[in-house]
Amino acid sequence: MDEFSAAKTAAGVYQWRGELVAAQHRLPGCAVDLGIAEMTPAEAARAGARTMIVGVVNVGGFIPEHWVATMVEALEQGLDLAAGMHQRLNDIPAIAAARDRTGRAVLDLRQPDRAFIPGSGRKRTGKRLLTVGTDCSVGKKYTALALEAGLRARNIPADFRATGQTGIMISGRGVAIDSVVADFISGAAEWLSPDAAPDHWDVIEGQGSLFHPAYAGVTLGLIHGSQPDALVVCHEPVRTHLLGFDYKVPDLRRCIDMNVAAAQLTNPEARVAGISVNTSRMEPTAIDAAIRDIETQTGLPCCDPIRHGVERILDVLLN
Amino acid sequence: MDEFSAAKTAAGVYQWRGELVAAQHRLPGCAVDLGIAEMTPAEAARAGARTMIVGVVNVGGFIPEHWVATMVEALEQGLDLAAGMHQRLNDIPAIAAARDRTGRAVLDLRQPDRAFIPGSGRKRTGKRLLTVGTDCSVGKKYTALALEAGLRARNIPADFRATGQTGIMISGRGVAIDSVVADFISGAAEWLSPDAAPDHWDVIEGQGSLFHPAYAGVTLGLIHGSQPDALVVCHEPVRTHLLGFDYKVPDLRRCIDMNVAAAQLTNPEARVAGISVNTSRMEPTAIDAAIRDIETQTGLPCCDPIRHGVERILDVLLN
Repeated sequence: MDEFSAAKTAAGVYQWRGELVAAQHRLPGCAVDLGIAEMTPAEAARAGARTMIVGVVNVGGFIPEHWVATMVEALEQGLDLAAGMHQRLNDIPAIAAARDRTGRAVLDLRQPDRAFIPGSGRKRTGKRLLTVGTDCSVGKKYTALALEAGLRARNIPADFRATGQTGIMISGRGVAIDSVVADFISGAAEWLSPDAAPDHWDVIEGQGSLFHPAYAGVTLGLIHGSQPDALVVCHEPVRTHLLGFDYKVPDLRRCIDMNVAAAQLTNPEARVAGISVNTSRMEPTAIDAAIRDIETQTGLPCCDPIRHGVERILDVLLN
Repeated sequence: MDEFSAAKTAAGVYQWRGELVAAQHRLPGCAVDLGIAEMTPAEAARAGARTMIVGVVNVGGFIPEHWVATMVEALEQGLDLAAGMHQRLNDIPAIAAARDRTGRAVLDLRQPDRAFIPGSGRKRTGKRLLTVGTDCSVGKKYTALALEAGLRARNIPADFRATGQTGIMISGRGVAIDSVVADFISGAAEWLSPDAAPDHWDVIEGQGSLFHPAYAGVTLGLIHGSQPDALVVCHEPVRTHLLGFDYKVPDLRRCIDMNVAAAQLTNPEARVAGISVNTSRMEPTAIDAAIRDIETQTGLPCCDPIRHGVERILDVLLN
């Protein structure tokens, strides 16, 4: 996997809260580099850092044993720890012992801190946008954050609603929707974006893909519970196979149709407002033509939020 | 809700393991009746019963406070307790205290007793059938058990694979798929029906419906993880709305198409082998015509497993 996928949490926090990031700390052999200062836990503590964040994600969300010593050292140096793995840092004896010894905080942000109930399907007030995609790690969180910023810049009330650990670290709230009890996926999504003022937009971070053999259940429950008025479909044109899986990336048109059909169960008005294209691995000279192709093919505004911003999608959304 | 829905667990255990059932015990005001002997916990213990099963299901799977005294009494009378609710009996202080005092067992069958990982999407050997449906409580478990029995009667190796608490009580194994961490739905389904001999059928109990605003995520993850070669679609023709929800029952043809499309992601050979119709609330004189209509409309064999058996579906399945 490339840097963006393997260190997705680190990259996301640095992209959106870079002013709070003091340094990176990499274990031997790490191929990922955010291009920022490298510090040991001791150096970072002296530089004013307060928390070590586990910035790497892996399938299954487990904590490899060779990470533990570094995390214990961070606690010993006076840092708090935060992670968004399925496996809880607090369940690892050496980390729990260091936590108790040092009095530092160990935050397992992927664990729901409240109980949920099944979804009701009841229509809520206010407007909602959900980012969906052809695969994982394709730009759903970035696009949602960019849309929140763009709406607010137009003086339209909007709230980013985090559904994953990185989004929670960035926005300070939300629910890791892939970590709730399966029966409560749509119920947790309903809780996440409650009734709101008629002109208010909740911009909900999507997860997974309806075409993903591991994660589509989470995606569908999130779609149903979110009751989106608008979908933005995120896509990476040069990706041929789902990241880490021997499955083809779905056809964009089919992906649009399936997501709209799913969303219309709980919100018959659901429609697609635009396509967010991740061009980070494309030849710069090929980007404009690829975007024009997608616009012609879909009849929807298409842009890379990092390269072009999201104004063209907002224009359609608000029309 | 009608008896079958409210006391679904009691009804299922009695239907399939009636020889092990000593009696029912109902709280004041209970409108459900299995039509069998009524006993107090003390009487049941004297009659040879060994376990009190919580036979009622509710949305959210919680234990109302007024049930607790009866369950404590059962433990005091020497019975074990078993339940398949999301809320754990073992977490209720009065029940935990009675358990420790009496040394009886308290089994929370909906809680996974092992860790899961995300699905891999890797194709497994052996054959698989999954029951799906237009709604909850429409006959998916009964149909799967009837198909297992029918296959075995034809000397074809087959195993019922339980995905809900009632199925686990009946078959003594399985996983309550709606209770695993959402990220692991399809992974748990993959674990449930492992590689098998080429002529072996796993007959997997379906859950929920792709058209259900609360539970479709579980349904989709179960479909993907099950990799079914064959689907049997369960349907109740006289039901107009999803049980307990202000949502219409989906059109049968559309339900078939969506389930096949979903299943073909992880098994391109997936097809529908038949329609299982629940006629329990239909006028007897209307049944034959309704079944003929569905057969004409879908081109698939259609039967009520309780009334007609499942031989016609098996004939198509094995052809």
